Amino acid sequence: MDNSPSLSAGPATANRGGMTSDVSRPEARNPRGFADRRARDLAAERTILAAVSEVYERYGFEALDTGALEYADALGKFLPDDDRPNEGVFALTDDDEQWVALRYDLTAPLARFAAQNWETLPKPFRRYAFGPVWRNEKPGPGRYREFVQCDADTVGSARPEADAEIIAMAVAGLEASGLPAGSAVLKINNRKLLNGLMAAAGVTAEGQKLGVLRAVDKLDRLGPGGVRLLLGEGRKDESGAFTKGAGLNATAAERVLAFTAVEAGERGQVLERLANVVGGSAEGDEGLAELAAIDAALTSLGVESDRAMFDPAVVRGLEYYTGAVFEAELLLQTTDEKGKPVRFGSIGGGGRYDDLVARFTGERTPAVGFSFGVTRLAAALKAAGRDLAAEVRGPVVVLVLDQTAMAEYFAVAGELRAAGIAAEVYLGTSGMRPQMKYADRRLSPAAVIMGGDELAAGTVTVKDLDLGRALASGVADNAAWRAERPGQMTVPRADLVAVIRKILQARP
Amino acid sequence: MDNSPSLSAGPATANRGGMTSDVSRPEARNPRGFADRRARDLAAERTILAAVSEVYERYGFEALDTGALEYADALGKFLPDDDRPNEGVFALTDDDEQWVALRYDLTAPLARFAAQNWETLPKPFRRYAFGPVWRNEKPGPGRYREFVQCDADTVGSARPEADAEIIAMAVAGLEASGLPAGSAVLKINNRKLLNGLMAAAGVTAEGQKLGVLRAVDKLDRLGPGGVRLLLGEGRKDESGAFTKGAGLNATAAERVLAFTAVEAGERGQVLERLANVVGGSAEGDEGLAELAAIDAALTSLGVESDRAMFDPAVVRGLEYYTGAVFEAELLLQTTDEKGKPVRFGSIGGGGRYDDLVARFTGERTPAVGFSFGVTRLAAALKAAGRDLAAEVRGPVVVLVLDQTAMAEYFAVAGELRAAGIAAEVYLGTSGMRPQMKYADRRLSPAAVIMGGDELAAGTVTVKDLDLGRALASGVADNAAWRAERPGQMTVPRADLVAVIRKILQARP
Repeated sequence: MDNSPSLSAGPATANRGGMTSDVSRPEARNPRGFADRRARDLAAERTILAAVSEVYERYGFEALDTGALEYADALGKFLPDDDRPNEGVFALTDDDEQWVALRYDLTAPLARFAAQNWETLPKPFRRYAFGPVWRNEKPGPGRYREFVQCDADTVGSARPEADAEIIAMAVAGLEASGLPAGSAVLKINNRKLLNGLMAAAGVTAEGQKLGVLRAVDKLDRLGPGGVRLLLGEGRKDESGAFTKGAGLNATAAERVLAFTAVEAGERGQVLERLANVVGGSAEGDEGLAELAAIDAALTSLGVESDRAMFDPAVVRGLEYYTGAVFEAELLLQTTDEKGKPVRFGSIGGGGRYDDLVARFTGERTPAVGFSFGVTRLAAALKAAGRDLAAEVRGPVVVLVLDQTAMAEYFAVAGELRAAGIAAEVYLGTSGMRPQMKYADRRLSPAAVIMGGDELAAGTVTVKDLDLGRALASGVADNAAWRAERPGQMTVPRADLVAVIRKILQARP
Repeated sequence: MDNSPSLSAGPATANRGGMTSDVSRPEARNPRGFADRRARDLAAERTILAAVSEVYERYGFEALDTGALEYADALGKFLPDDDRPNEGVFALTDDDEQWVALRYDLTAPLARFAAQNWETLPKPFRRYAFGPVWRNEKPGPGRYREFVQCDADTVGSARPEADAEIIAMAVAGLEASGLPAGSAVLKINNRKLLNGLMAAAGVTAEGQKLGVLRAVDKLDRLGPGGVRLLLGEGRKDESGAFTKGAGLNATAAERVLAFTAVEAGERGQVLERLANVVGGSAEGDEGLAELAAIDAALTSLGVESDRAMFDPAVVRGLEYYTGAVFEAELLLQTTDEKGKPVRFGSIGGGGRYDDLVARFTGERTPAVGFSFGVTRLAAALKAAGRDLAAEVRGPVVVLVLDQTAMAEYFAVAGELRAAGIAAEVYLGTSGMRPQMKYADRRLSPAAVIMGGDELAAGTVTVKDLDLGRALASGVADNAAWRAERPGQMTVPRADLVAVIRKILQARP
């Protein structure tokens, strides 16, 4: 891992010649679906990841970082009838002609890692991870091909208590990241309930079962009437497009609808109601017993139904879930760009998947995990009133008004930094007005002005830029603010740090 | 950035069928040159990045995160006579048939970003960044194809004070990351000195100038005698292999050697001695004036020559440097795997590059930066006596000895977590001995034992695993430790948190 590039070779030295020639000048743009993120964009992500990491470690999960690239077959993306991985991933051939691909989630690399190191890992293996994942899909507004996920999983425990710990930890992580207590809820279901119900109704074909799951997943959008059609022959939407249904008979369809009609809520009550609908089939009873154990563990962990409830309508898309599934949902009513009230919806989810490690080892390895998209959670925080981006401030800028006083300016910046205050000397060549404009664009809380008068008198002039921005944006009431906060003041040099601190503490 | 996968499509749902079938079972391994990193491997990286970020922000640098992929032409990797980027990068074609590649450093993406956003950026633009970079090179021991770099750059300032700020900040960052003060030094040179000297000697061809740089870069390894040969006709090494020299005449070669013979040290003194060797040529004088301004700013910033000195022997490989160059070097004598004393060498470096943004815009844009490899710095910290990996501890493990007491176990884990102590209930199905072994492998400081006796008496038994590990490794003296630290103790349940805290505070 040599960081000092050599003169003789290496990629960084190639082709720098003739770089200003007009002919070969490349266009400066990033690939479609990739975003550059500046301090304001990163503030929420960093706060969330620090808070959530701390919680996950407190719950006994260890950090793991796997590489960006995986062999394509390990990701499970290799189509047997094609010599090129499918279009959902960014793939390339390595120098030994093997296909490698950028990971599209953090679960597939975990399954690979667990299978590779199973003998030597402490078991159960509890790990959390965060980092970018990549999807080679059509990008769109707010839809990126690179985004950051954060996952926690327990591999090697079939105990429902492992599910409960993941759920309790997800609740704690969301709250630690800044979501007000009670503003989000984990909604929990178990695939085995619906499976048991389908078995009892004679539905055993995988394709048909998947059709039922897909139909139930649309309950939110289509209501019971629409889902009934999708459980049966199919449904024609407003545009006239026809979606083929799961093909259940009417009795079976009504049983599924009765199941999903059980209202979400207090865990004990939901369990009782569910027992009436799905009890009796072996798999259904198994699912009920698991939910009962999850309920007991959550209660021991102090997580009541207001933060983690049972909800038979939760499906979660991924086929690979085999037992409990859960979805974290923001309860706050929010508004869209046009001010219309909307449900914010899911901010993460997870469940039990017992087959992913078996892809490699052939041995069933029980696992359960929870995942959330970091940008999605940041958006939820903003919807809940915590806009971390708005709290970002740049450094105090020390203006350069006298080229012979540079030593003085650097000394002032050094003093502020020593006091823990971000500061810099302006290093361009422009005059005072552009320097003030620079400070404002850097979101500086204040500018320090030391011209001839100040230098002679041993004073500094401090301009309160936070105030200026607050007044300009109408956040602050002009008169009230002006009364206690002068826009600009000249103070003895020795008082500089104290004056800047006061501005920082009064952040609007 | 939708985090909830849909049932109907998406890469994560593809091809999970038949996953336990023996025929299609993939091998669990990561691509060559890629490493999985667990908590111990990540501890140093995270500590370093948190400390350095804090320092860099205090110096007024804003965070920037660009994507992993860039258009290959933007990276400057596209060979004009080939329709495929060269082998140093991981490249693939996007769906619009354009070549994209994983970034191989953080400078090329910065140049692209700055060119793309130049109109709207505050100028000078000061940013720091960290993250993985990828090199499609032959991996080897300790040589990975994915590793983490951390960079800071100022784009748009030609002032030598910008170089000085980067240097002062690099010093502060290294110390904040845990390097003892005085254990590292920044060694500074200026390309213009050697350029001026070469111009005075009539050396103007780019190839020949590069040959001189390459020769000087080997001073450390070959000494003045070897460099003299490489400056002239060339040099045959012990194996008989011949390296062609730069072809300078004897007078010019001796002038270069006289330049590099100026000893590193106190900045004012080095400047005086250098003036005698390179003074008089226009470019040489420019270089001297820049170094004098860097010296003045560093002094104002409180950075003396013991932490940032001038050293004419510093070259830095990259062709793209145009002015000041610097190298951070660990001064501690360390030992290699065989116990032999070795110089640790460079832990980072940087310099001024004024042409990278011009690749896109055609306009020369002055820039200066410093970069270090995070793993390399972690190794330096370890060599300096701070092994952050050794400080990693897992959670307290609450053993499960009585299945009917799960609620009790979860309550204990919850109590510990509420006190800020990492804790978990064992969630496997094994007996007591494997559970203790599990706790030990998790590097738990302690195990909590609550069997029938403890449950009946309202007590807990705590086993001090930190002590056990210290005794086993011979770190702790058996008798002395035993005297004040029992290996195991049974205490009232109410005292649990206090007992665990005592163990954590006594970490060996």
